[in-house]
Amino acid sequence: MSRFETRLKEAAERINTALDGLLPRDQGPESRLLSAMRYSALAGGKRLRPFFTLEVGRMFDADEGMLLRVASAIECVHTYSLIHDDLPCMDDDDLRRGRPTLHRQYDEATALLAGDALLTFAFELLAEPATHTDPQMRCKLILGLAKAAGALGMVAGQAADMAGADIGSDLIAVTRMNRLKTGALINFAVEAGAMVGCASEAEKTALMRYAHDVGLAFQMVDDLLDAEGVARDTGKAVGKDKDRGKVNFVTVLGADATRERIGMLANQAKAHLGLFGHRAHILTDAVDFIVQRRY
Amino acid sequence: MSRFETRLKEAAERINTALDGLLPRDQGPESRLLSAMRYSALAGGKRLRPFFTLEVGRMFDADEGMLLRVASAIECVHTYSLIHDDLPCMDDDDLRRGRPTLHRQYDEATALLAGDALLTFAFELLAEPATHTDPQMRCKLILGLAKAAGALGMVAGQAADMAGADIGSDLIAVTRMNRLKTGALINFAVEAGAMVGCASEAEKTALMRYAHDVGLAFQMVDDLLDAEGVARDTGKAVGKDKDRGKVNFVTVLGADATRERIGMLANQAKAHLGLFGHRAHILTDAVDFIVQRRY
Repeated sequence: MSRFETRLKEAAERINTALDGLLPRDQGPESRLLSAMRYSALAGGKRLRPFFTLEVGRMFDADEGMLLRVASAIECVHTYSLIHDDLPCMDDDDLRRGRPTLHRQYDEATALLAGDALLTFAFELLAEPATHTDPQMRCKLILGLAKAAGALGMVAGQAADMAGADIGSDLIAVTRMNRLKTGALINFAVEAGAMVGCASEAEKTALMRYAHDVGLAFQMVDDLLDAEGVARDTGKAVGKDKDRGKVNFVTVLGADATRERIGMLANQAKAHLGLFGHRAHILTDAVDFIVQRRY
Repeated sequence: MSRFETRLKEAAERINTALDGLLPRDQGPESRLLSAMRYSALAGGKRLRPFFTLEVGRMFDADEGMLLRVASAIECVHTYSLIHDDLPCMDDDDLRRGRPTLHRQYDEATALLAGDALLTFAFELLAEPATHTDPQMRCKLILGLAKAAGALGMVAGQAADMAGADIGSDLIAVTRMNRLKTGALINFAVEAGAMVGCASEAEKTALMRYAHDVGLAFQMVDDLLDAEGVARDTGKAVGKDKDRGKVNFVTVLGADATRERIGMLANQAKAHLGLFGHRAHILTDAVDFIVQRRY
């Protein structure tokens, strides 16, 4: 395991511990709902979004406890989006993070409600005084997360993804869909770390550009893995986009041109970090990890 | 139309205007998602929850513009819960507020996502500075709404409702389920008006007791209408709880005992308002309206 992977794994463990402590206990009359929330939220995964929040915040010496709460809220939103995306009326997936999807393990109604509850819980977490002493900052975090996740952000991307070729099958349409579906929340994960860390405007701008390029490269790798990967590595079904008539970077550009663009985006993402010098070495390593990952 | 009904209708119109102005325009590539949100959020309905927020806030001379934003956020959460409740994996309803349910008018994926987006939008609304000048107040409103709507509030009630007789078929279980499913959000609608109006603790306590009794009476009337009503009046399918093996106040108590309890709760609700004298006359009238309503 590389130095970077060790660091990513440590962050994932801290997030898992934080989520385990923050999520309601699965007891009482609603234990089925609560254990369903835990089943998905504590299922592992790379925890890349919270990793970004933690590492960016750390660059500015932000308080670790606050960062963990913000990162947990972002991961709850990410998890809810996966649960709803996997439902039969959406992608109808059976496998997620190497285990049965929530509606396969429980039932559709429970999965729907557990997703709803995780989304709601993210805002509860952010609104609590423990997240930040300054209520103005808490409101800004809530506003940022809601915009990134909502009807003009992630949910718009999910709707565009469902529309498939109807949204257009050119590079512009696919890029736009992915900026919304995965890019918006990755951007906010980076931005939230910068916000809690009180980064300057110039630093925020550089980090937002980094997040933009990393988010697109991440999605392009995802599309390559969907086209070429194996379920054992990715922990989810593969080859489904093409089967479903969905458009993605590989269906539009082909694998070779997609790989070429990933390389360009990776270099560009690293260049945006120049401003930070050695302080950003983990974010630089993250780029290499993301473009080389097999899962 | 009674004086009260005129006032309720006026409030509903103000809420409709506010929501129409606040919700994103249904244009651009995601126009289908955005128009689906509008289809449900602007479908009418009694707007009872926002009415409570507006009228309670008014008792304390709270700012009307702020109250309208808070009331709109609450109605977005209520609308999202109806959309998800109507989905095939939940109650599988075809009719709502006299029109096809959202998934019948559009499709399941769009309904799921429109519900998600409305829930998210509620928190976006509350977090914006226009909702209240004091960010501490905005955080308190967000926290209150998230708790009322979340895994230990409304969503727990929806889960208990789906579990049907498995949760127990006695009065305690049914009361608990309804306190969560509809009571929590009605309570918060009243509480939010008191919060924005800076009510005293004694005033808040009286209003919370009022909300508790009104919420239960409201649900008992709903159950009577489901058992005895006609779809034309209620704007939704009727007689479905029994057909589905669900437990409600009428299946547990019978219609006569339910009616008797509604009368007791109505008197008790009005008694809690004694503290406010004539200032609370609209809230007193609301009790009569709720227990006498046929829709």
